Amino acid sequence: MFLLNYFEIIGTVAFAISGAVIGIEKKLDIFGITFLAIVTSVGGGIFRDIIIGNTPPTAFVNPTSSIISIFTALVVFFFYEKKSKFEKIIIISDALGLGVFTAIGCRTAIIRGADNAIFVIAMGLSTGVGGGMIRDILVENVPFVLKREIYALASIIGALCFFFFYSYFPEIISLYLCCAIIFIIRITSVKYNINLPAFKNWK
Amino acid sequence: MFLLNYFEIIGTVAFAISGAVIGIEKKLDIFGITFLAIVTSVGGGIFRDIIIGNTPPTAFVNPTSSIISIFTALVVFFFYEKKSKFEKIIIISDALGLGVFTAIGCRTAIIRGADNAIFVIAMGLSTGVGGGMIRDILVENVPFVLKREIYALASIIGALCFFFFYSYFPEIISLYLCCAIIFIIRITSVKYNINLPAFKNWK
Amino acid sequence: MFLLNYFEIIGTVAFAISGAVIGIEKKLDIFGITFLAIVTSVGGGIFRDIIIGNTPPTAFVNPTSSIISIFTALVVFFFYEKKSKFEKIIIISDALGLGVFTAIGCRTAIIRGADNAIFVIAMGLSTGVGGGMIRDILVENVPFVLKREIYALASIIGALCFFFFYSYFPEIISLYLCCAIIFIIRITSVKYNINLPAFKNWK
Repeated sequence: MFLLNYFEIIGTVAFAISGAVIGIEKKLDIFGITFLAIVTSVGGGIFRDIIIGNTPPTAFVNPTSSIISIFTALVVFFFYEKKSKFEKIIIISDALGLGVFTAIGCRTAIIRGADNAIFVIAMGLSTGVGGGMIRDILVENVPFVLKREIYALASIIGALCFFFFYSYFPEIISLYLCCAIIFIIRITSVKYNINLPAFKNWK
Repeated sequence: MFLLNYFEIIGTVAFAISGAVIGIEKKLDIFGITFLAIVTSVGGGIFRDIIIGNTPPTAFVNPTSSIISIFTALVVFFFYEKKSKFEKIIIISDALGLGVFTAIGCRTAIIRGADNAIFVIAMGLSTGVGGGMIRDILVENVPFVLKREIYALASIIGALCFFFFYSYFPEIISLYLCCAIIFIIRITSVKYNINLPAFKNWK
Repeated sequence: MFLLNYFEIIGTVAFAISGAVIGIEKKLDIFGITFLAIVTSVGGGIFRDIIIGNTPPTAFVNPTSSIISIFTALVVFFFYEKKSKFEKIIIISDALGLGVFTAIGCRTAIIRGADNAIFVIAMGLSTGVGGGMIRDILVENVPFVLKREIYALASIIGALCFFFFYSYFPEIISLYLCCAIIFIIRITSVKYNINLPAFKNWK
């Protein structure tokens, strides 16, 4: 899992950046910005651990991710200038983070005894998008995953694939395939601006 | 519990409809609408299970309610026209759902060892209104149960009755009485437009 | 812990008042006001107990705090006139509550096996400010602890001190020192209007 751990750090940093940037835009103080960065990167995993009964959650027992997020937030706070400058890097690393966190969520759920697809998908999804949802609720945005973008859907498709792959392939292969599928769907949807239908659009 | 299970399905469908309709009004995409439907119908029970330490929550171990909610959301998405058309059906089935979910919440709490009235009421209430509160927080409404309507109060009164009935009657009778009391209070308050006092009104 | 229990009651009442007053300002009904009072005073502890796996949370097993909060909310509802009249009392008792709840949160975390500073601080912080955050999310405010005030920071510094004191001093001394440090930092920052830098200010 060596390479995956690298990816996990990239995902943590990417999620922390997105939290810190939104905190700056919402005019929070330096504590609020750091808090939002931590919540975005570890919130999904904490939520998943509470659901599956894995308490205290890994994020507290081993605070590496929180420490990475704190450093990331401080770097963003002192060096941030304009959103547009970072945008491409953020989108790519965020897609990577979505893939890695979803894969980890699915794996954790299966190891802890989850045996139906909906449970596994729900845990992959909540690990992947939960942190971002908490971030958006805290700063009074309607969580953007509920709006029109192929973000949650990428996570769901990847999680479903993981659920099926897991019976047939070695674990490490399933993890990488899940990551790769999510990354490709997400990046493709951003590049070609593909959205899910809302009610008005569908009519 | 055969009949109660029918009621439970009705409650699940009613709650899923209310989530889907609010999702449409808030212009969410098809994923967001479905997600809101699931959260509204199973969110309260998940919250209760986390509180009493029943992890993983029933809703994940047995995903029937989630599947019903997904189908309900899709039907609403494709056939919804105007809120007014459905309003009467929604209010009646929602009142039924409130009753059933509160009763189930109280029963679960007592079975898991809750022995004081406040704990039992809190679990009945969170099962009954928790899903709707999470739905409202996600789409940035102040939860409507906190505003002026006899909704949470119906659930609380029913839960308190259940707590006392449970010592004297067979379980199944307590469950039905709790449901019936909540249903009657809720429907009566809607029909005669009875509200709780807010601060200004009381002055 | 006799004196601390007095402080705990003061903190509970202070937090319940802040919840009730915000409920009145947001035009909630009497149920919503009471609910907000309860959530503000016991929400942080419930959140902490869920995280550390102490289910059902203490607040449900022993509902004293909830009962105190209900009475407090009713008193506020019937006797409240203007925010300004109470402001000084609220600020002082709220600072006391922040100190007491943070100290209790840290102690609970350590007793339950937390052994790294970030975990202990996170539990102190969530016990101290968690209730207020849930209150603010429910009524659609961006949680004020994320904005510019030395509030969360006071809790964090106190928690960090507790973590170090705990190894060297008797428990009761650590608890009082933690409380006192938080109280002094909080009151000083209000008196001299000291804030944390936000992004614009720092530039």
